[in-house]
Amino acid sequence: MTAAASDNVQSLRRSGPPSLDPMMALVADGMNQVNAVILDRMQSRIPLIPELAGHLIAGGGKRMRPMLTLACSELLGYAGTRHYKLAAAVEFIHTATLLHDDVVDGSGLRRGRKTANIIWGNSASVLVGDFLFSRSFELMVEAESLKVLKILSGASAIIAEGEVNQLSAQRRIDTSEEQYLDIIGAKTAALFAAACRISAVVAERDETQETALDTYGRYLGIAFQLVDDALDYESDGATMGKDAGDDFRDGKVTLPVILAYARGSDEDRAFWKAAIAGHKISDDDLARATGLLRRTGAISDTLARARHYGQRAIDAIAIFPQGRARDALTEAVEFAIARAY
Amino acid sequence: MTAAASDNVQSLRRSGPPSLDPMMALVADGMNQVNAVILDRMQSRIPLIPELAGHLIAGGGKRMRPMLTLACSELLGYAGTRHYKLAAAVEFIHTATLLHDDVVDGSGLRRGRKTANIIWGNSASVLVGDFLFSRSFELMVEAESLKVLKILSGASAIIAEGEVNQLSAQRRIDTSEEQYLDIIGAKTAALFAAACRISAVVAERDETQETALDTYGRYLGIAFQLVDDALDYESDGATMGKDAGDDFRDGKVTLPVILAYARGSDEDRAFWKAAIAGHKISDDDLARATGLLRRTGAISDTLARARHYGQRAIDAIAIFPQGRARDALTEAVEFAIARAY
Repeated sequence: MTAAASDNVQSLRRSGPPSLDPMMALVADGMNQVNAVILDRMQSRIPLIPELAGHLIAGGGKRMRPMLTLACSELLGYAGTRHYKLAAAVEFIHTATLLHDDVVDGSGLRRGRKTANIIWGNSASVLVGDFLFSRSFELMVEAESLKVLKILSGASAIIAEGEVNQLSAQRRIDTSEEQYLDIIGAKTAALFAAACRISAVVAERDETQETALDTYGRYLGIAFQLVDDALDYESDGATMGKDAGDDFRDGKVTLPVILAYARGSDEDRAFWKAAIAGHKISDDDLARATGLLRRTGAISDTLARARHYGQRAIDAIAIFPQGRARDALTEAVEFAIARAY
Repeated sequence: MTAAASDNVQSLRRSGPPSLDPMMALVADGMNQVNAVILDRMQSRIPLIPELAGHLIAGGGKRMRPMLTLACSELLGYAGTRHYKLAAAVEFIHTATLLHDDVVDGSGLRRGRKTANIIWGNSASVLVGDFLFSRSFELMVEAESLKVLKILSGASAIIAEGEVNQLSAQRRIDTSEEQYLDIIGAKTAALFAAACRISAVVAERDETQETALDTYGRYLGIAFQLVDDALDYESDGATMGKDAGDDFRDGKVTLPVILAYARGSDEDRAFWKAAIAGHKISDDDLARATGLLRRTGAISDTLARARHYGQRAIDAIAIFPQGRARDALTEAVEFAIARAY
């Protein structure tokens, strides 16, 4: 308890902005194990598979989801090793999703690098995604937990449903805030939730603790996504690893747009309609959009929503003992929010 | 035994060409259960999912793979119900693969109907494929067999590997017969093998019986694919449900082409090289290709290879008692071969 208490004091004494460093330090040893599994299991006798998968897997992602599985396991005091393969499986599901996402969105840039679909083509991205998805289930089978398999196959179905839902909502300016939260709840938050929840299954904790970790992950995921949505209008390519205004030029309806449209004048709404329909893609158009978003408070209120969900994530883990792990998970939420400032 | 013996006599007395009718009759009741699971589990609150999935699932496929799971279960005298969900899971994996295949190949026609990617676009096909793939794992989890999950997640990874391998071999005239058999072994035969093998797992039979059924399914799958390859140069769209010469115009290296290239003159080889590179796509070119394939015996020898694998499939199930189920499985092989005549 002494170490945990002093860590906590240190966290309160934190001078710089919140960061993921405490979580990374907490799970550093475990992540070495997870990374070894990831590297080992993305191999194949077909050279294109590790080549393409490695581009994305080695491409500077934070590996937030497996880190969360490990950090939540620390929170529960789990001392075994079964979660390493499961954390790798979660990362494989995420990677498969990204590969397919970039094909669906026709993206050319991710984390500041060319996307796999640009380098190797859409077909290779689809098929290597399928391979990683299958591999993730092989890893889960090896971990021999039907309950984890149920959670992650369910999350995968929800993610795919969310993606199809987003595709259907594409370029629909009448998407409501509720519908949008529903979409990102499925697309982004479901896997965050599952990544956290499975640690409680492996550690054989009760339903209350499972649900608490699920809730933490879910709201952290939503907060992350909402901040990303705001940043897309505020940052440059160097910060986000993608071009600023990408969402705008792609006609994506995100929460900032939903709020600005609802609050706008008739003229503003006509502008947003045309933008989402794909008729406003110049730098001047983007500047006008950013102006409208600021004037209507759409950006700051998107961030307020993110803070709301972030707080709920932090409160969800209040049932667990204070200490280094809870502090790290709390600071991860603060980091998600603070990126916007 | 009397009923089985008389069925066997009837099969020997068969007057018409071999057909799938005996297998369909054998599993008719079970297939109603499987179809109910398929229809129920392809539903989603996102309307595009059942709409798109239904187009392919209701689109006149024979449902060979779930039929094989059921027919093999009959062969083993399995009287339970656990295989219905698993057979549906196999069909979902197959459907997901077809959706992604059509995107990868840019196909416009399957089973005589427009493909989903033509109607709803590539993105929707990729995502609904992902959904069905996830659902298949949900179904397997419900059946609560880690061993079946291992077999089918392994088969899925092998299928994806085979698809990537095929993509890498695309338009490579120097693909060897061994490499090609390796590709179709993964792309087509692995799921046939798994569909048959899992019946032995559910019926709790020993490794010998599991392997026998795996072998039957694998060689049946290879025979099916080789006959398809031959038919692509011999049939019209009405028979195959796709356009004759599709493989040729797509520059696909299949066994008939591999044999004709190996056996051809320098002039013939130059023609095949140009064809596979995509420079020969006219009707005259197709006619020349068909002529070369016939002259070199490439078509008839592709069919001889198919008969070889078909015979090995039939021999693999010789360890099981004679009767209606074994006759139906045997005739399914004969049907696969006889389509070419």
